Amino acid sequence: MVATDIATRVWNHTFKLDPIVRSLLDTDFYKLLMLQMIWGLHRDRRVTFRLINRTKSVRIADEIDEGELRAQLDHARTVRFSKREMIWLAGNTFYGERQIFRPAFLEWLTDFQLPPYELSHRDGQYELMFRGAWTDTMMWEIPALAIINELRSRSAMKDCGRFELDVLYARAKAKMWEKVERLDKLPSIRISDFGTRRRHSFLWQRWCVEALKEKLGNRFIGSSNVLLAMETDLEAIGTNAHELPMVAAALARTEEALRAAPYEILKEWQSWYGGNLLVVLPDTFGTGAFLKNAPTWVGDWTGFRPDSAPPIEGGEAIIAWWRSLGIDPREKLLVFSDGMDVDTIEETYRHFEGRVRMSFGWGTNLTNDFRGVAPDERPSLHPISLVCKVMDADGRPAVKLSDNPAKATGTAAEIERYRRVFGTAAEIPRAVAV
Amino acid sequence: MVATDIATRVWNHTFKLDPIVRSLLDTDFYKLLMLQMIWGLHRDRRVTFRLINRTKSVRIADEIDEGELRAQLDHARTVRFSKREMIWLAGNTFYGERQIFRPAFLEWLTDFQLPPYELSHRDGQYELMFRGAWTDTMMWEIPALAIINELRSRSAMKDCGRFELDVLYARAKAKMWEKVERLDKLPSIRISDFGTRRRHSFLWQRWCVEALKEKLGNRFIGSSNVLLAMETDLEAIGTNAHELPMVAAALARTEEALRAAPYEILKEWQSWYGGNLLVVLPDTFGTGAFLKNAPTWVGDWTGFRPDSAPPIEGGEAIIAWWRSLGIDPREKLLVFSDGMDVDTIEETYRHFEGRVRMSFGWGTNLTNDFRGVAPDERPSLHPISLVCKVMDADGRPAVKLSDNPAKATGTAAEIERYRRVFGTAAEIPRAVAV
Repeated sequence: MVATDIATRVWNHTFKLDPIVRSLLDTDFYKLLMLQMIWGLHRDRRVTFRLINRTKSVRIADEIDEGELRAQLDHARTVRFSKREMIWLAGNTFYGERQIFRPAFLEWLTDFQLPPYELSHRDGQYELMFRGAWTDTMMWEIPALAIINELRSRSAMKDCGRFELDVLYARAKAKMWEKVERLDKLPSIRISDFGTRRRHSFLWQRWCVEALKEKLGNRFIGSSNVLLAMETDLEAIGTNAHELPMVAAALARTEEALRAAPYEILKEWQSWYGGNLLVVLPDTFGTGAFLKNAPTWVGDWTGFRPDSAPPIEGGEAIIAWWRSLGIDPREKLLVFSDGMDVDTIEETYRHFEGRVRMSFGWGTNLTNDFRGVAPDERPSLHPISLVCKVMDADGRPAVKLSDNPAKATGTAAEIERYRRVFGTAAEIPRAVAV
Repeated sequence: MVATDIATRVWNHTFKLDPIVRSLLDTDFYKLLMLQMIWGLHRDRRVTFRLINRTKSVRIADEIDEGELRAQLDHARTVRFSKREMIWLAGNTFYGERQIFRPAFLEWLTDFQLPPYELSHRDGQYELMFRGAWTDTMMWEIPALAIINELRSRSAMKDCGRFELDVLYARAKAKMWEKVERLDKLPSIRISDFGTRRRHSFLWQRWCVEALKEKLGNRFIGSSNVLLAMETDLEAIGTNAHELPMVAAALARTEEALRAAPYEILKEWQSWYGGNLLVVLPDTFGTGAFLKNAPTWVGDWTGFRPDSAPPIEGGEAIIAWWRSLGIDPREKLLVFSDGMDVDTIEETYRHFEGRVRMSFGWGTNLTNDFRGVAPDERPSLHPISLVCKVMDADGRPAVKLSDNPAKATGTAAEIERYRRVFGTAAEIPRAVAV
């Protein structure tokens, strides 16, 4: 009566490695957009990325095996863009624009390989570093995070029985669906998946993405994950990230140049991209400072992505700034993406409804919310605040201040200097969950 | 990346009928035990079974299509015992006894086929009747009920999307597992699956049985479903049912014979079976009357299955009766099987712990508890109180009184006569849920 797929069964029982990253498209779309610009304008920059676990209480090196981590990282280094993937990148329309990727860039991408990594551990934490050309090292951020997060969840589930696992995923699905049913009550919500880096697993992210697609229809506007966008016929979503102003600032030789760096990099961006890709990420050195010093042409950009201020305060500050320039916020876009979950999405949606265009990037609380679903309440299934950040650029230390000092990165002396230059008026300390 | 099993996919999209009953072993074990005795002692009796929907508010004939119902019933009539099934029946040890089924009976069973059925409908209810030899008609009870109940749940889910279905089962699994985790806290519980007739579906019953097996280990003592017992290597559980005293009583020509009928049929039973199969079902014409008139040899039987009295009251009455005969209840067994769910199981377990041996037959609330799991609260997924009962034997009307008058079956005049003969002192009206 039971038809066993023998090939599947044998495969499941004999594999040596179950790769977490099987495609270079299994990354966030903004990485590719930024990569093209870096390839065009900053091909010789040397940038170091470094893993930082902000959840110090979790000793990752005790949870996951170094051999397994190396095997996954090594496997990721063997992956290349496939022909089909290259064709999709070349032929697809992104944000309504054809051929956003230039033929010479795609040509260069064909041979792309993730560069070597440096791995050691200290005090229960892994020290994971990527040194080399910016074009190479920046591509490690997402796969490195996804690998460590998925190894954590695999390790957390190692001792589960067959039915415990079935029930664990059953509960996770039920929990996730309840959230989607709540979102479904917001008639004009626009939401996308931003959950690649801290996902529970690739298959779980895919389930979440397909569930959102079925339930919310075109109110689910897409996924930041390029592979999932391709496979499930969704829009790839994303624009730019903190690494651009961080590197630009690190390279500034004077305080004046440092203060101008966040805007100079936006100028570079708009020489490459237009329309809906013109989304400002204002919080790298504090949203308050950014708005205070911003040239008026920034008001021409499509919108802002407040990423570390509380969404309502951050959004109000940006709206007030638009208004001060005589701009109608209803023609502008706010993208909320910092640790959002259904409560804050509902609250933010209702707060700004009708006053500004909005979209939500739903990340960790979409793809890794397994709190309360395990047979026991195992903390090893809880997401942690793990990031992979620029440490230095051409040998000069890099800094991020953010609107939340708990998210600041860089040496103490450099953070101090940046605070002096940019000011700290708008900083709002908050606990960082994810 | 996605490996599609083409054969499975084609199969899923082209089948004409997805049979609900695919094996004659997909029935309750007590049916086979009773069948052997009926084959041995009552081969020429003509007994009519009839479907009764006690949940009048549910109009089954509006919910499920007559054509589909006929197709399923017709398919069940094409099924025969397979060679492998016959070998398992012949070679297995049941209740610790080898070769419980006699070779001549198994020989006869080889050619067994479900007899014709009569189907019509009136007032939104199906009239489904099985007339013929007792040996044939009695075998329809379980498959007929399972078919109608599964057709109801299929119909209830017809308009569900792919992910709605996935979430529906995810929620059902989560709900079921919470119950199992509560049962797991009862260290010496003995529980079995009695949920075939009113199951949501065969596959769901199998999931429940395998989940219980994994979580409770040998505290899950088996399944009444013979096919599942065979496939999952569990004990087949069950002894005898109301149809035996009902037919015996219907055939009684005098009031004295009627009063003696429930004991005469037990005498027949113990001429065929022994040990743990000697379990009395005392409530057919009221437990109070049964105990009051019971000969002392009934005290030698292994135990009782109170099936319509509230478990604690029913159990206490039986314990008091054992004590009145000088029997130590701790050597005796009570099997609780009437509409049990975790609350009543816990309560009953704690009440009788240490005072009597106990086991629980968990039925509808195990295999068909989908309340609260559908996207909307659709009543069509709720179980109903559907039974298939003896209507007459050799042309004489049959009656069941039970400890709960809401469960009485038979004509009003006959019920009146039985009440006069057996008395109604112990009747306790209760709402019948399942």
